[in-house]
Amino acid sequence: MDQLYPSVNVSLPLWVSAHVKPGQMFSTIEDKMRLVISLADRNVSEGTGGPFGAGIFEVESGTLVAPGVNLVVVGACSLAHAEIMAFMIAQQSLKTFDLGSANLPAMELVTSAQPCIQCWGALWWSGIKRLVTGASCEQTEELTGFDEGPVPPNWADLLRKRLPETAHIEVIEGVLAEESCAVLKRYKEAGGKIYRPGSGC
Amino acid sequence: MDQLYPSVNVSLPLWVSAHVKPGQMFSTIEDKMRLVISLADRNVSEGTGGPFGAGIFEVESGTLVAPGVNLVVVGACSLAHAEIMAFMIAQQSLKTFDLGSANLPAMELVTSAQPCIQCWGALWWSGIKRLVTGASCEQTEELTGFDEGPVPPNWADLLRKRLPETAHIEVIEGVLAEESCAVLKRYKEAGGKIYRPGSGC
Repeated sequence: MDQLYPSVNVSLPLWVSAHVKPGQMFSTIEDKMRLVISLADRNVSEGTGGPFGAGIFEVESGTLVAPGVNLVVVGACSLAHAEIMAFMIAQQSLKTFDLGSANLPAMELVTSAQPCIQCWGALWWSGIKRLVTGASCEQTEELTGFDEGPVPPNWADLLRKRLPETAHIEVIEGVLAEESCAVLKRYKEAGGKIYRPGSGC
Repeated sequence: MDQLYPSVNVSLPLWVSAHVKPGQMFSTIEDKMRLVISLADRNVSEGTGGPFGAGIFEVESGTLVAPGVNLVVVGACSLAHAEIMAFMIAQQSLKTFDLGSANLPAMELVTSAQPCIQCWGALWWSGIKRLVTGASCEQTEELTGFDEGPVPPNWADLLRKRLPETAHIEVIEGVLAEESCAVLKRYKEAGGKIYRPGSGC
């Protein structure tokens, strides 16, 4: 029997491997955020996608497990936001669907911009224990024109108060938001593609 | 420069290619739903994942573009719900992130169970014009113990009333829900894995 359907196969651009190595350590929240903003910025200058970067880190040690950048257009995949790429690559690296497995250290997602409705939805099943965000959805929408979808106003509290108590996800918002917004602005000013489903672009 | 990060690579199990061919036609909504429920059922009996099946179809012609089944555990990927697999495989097949592209016929997602928070979030960016669901989130939670996440009570109306008007997504709920629930029950009764992030299973 032959496989009649294509595999889903999405890879990070090669420049990411030159930019940051797996296992590299980042000691503060700001250091982690600076890295993911630099990924967003380089994703734009390399022409590989939208102005968004993310990473999965071990919370305590600060070790980078997986970076992610937006690859929607080059990857022909509406799922391929920076956060989703980071989740999937971290899970492939660790050979588990659950970054919250008992045999792993606590993991966090650090993302240059607050997750849109898709990425907010996905993080419920990812197993992360903490989320750190840069620019807010309002800032992203205002500065770029990208749609973030119906993210509920209490999105962070829903994660913080998730039941049972062991499933709580800590949220730290607005870290280096200005630096992240600067990348969003540069993308828009340079005429970066603001794709939307059904818009024909 | 070597690639230091794994690719994301998720394939449908081979039995799917034996079960249904790309391009096969399904003339009614019930025929499409019957197919995706049969995918859910066979996913359980083949031992490849949870009791969920989905498919992307051309709305008018009824042509199957891509099937999907739940591959979370075997794929080591929390994203790999049936709906997400169908989105990603359809987009890879058509070489576009946007199933709503102007050069494509209108596409729909038919899914054996109402999308959880992750899949509901993802469908905003997929480009589909219509969603057809079987079992409700309440039924899935009650019959299996899987968590569906904070899906808003007005989830269907938010899609139906999405702006601008050209972005509306039609929703048809509860098609062959009893048949879908029967698969959910069989999975639970057979001791099927009810995985949750952080639960250690």
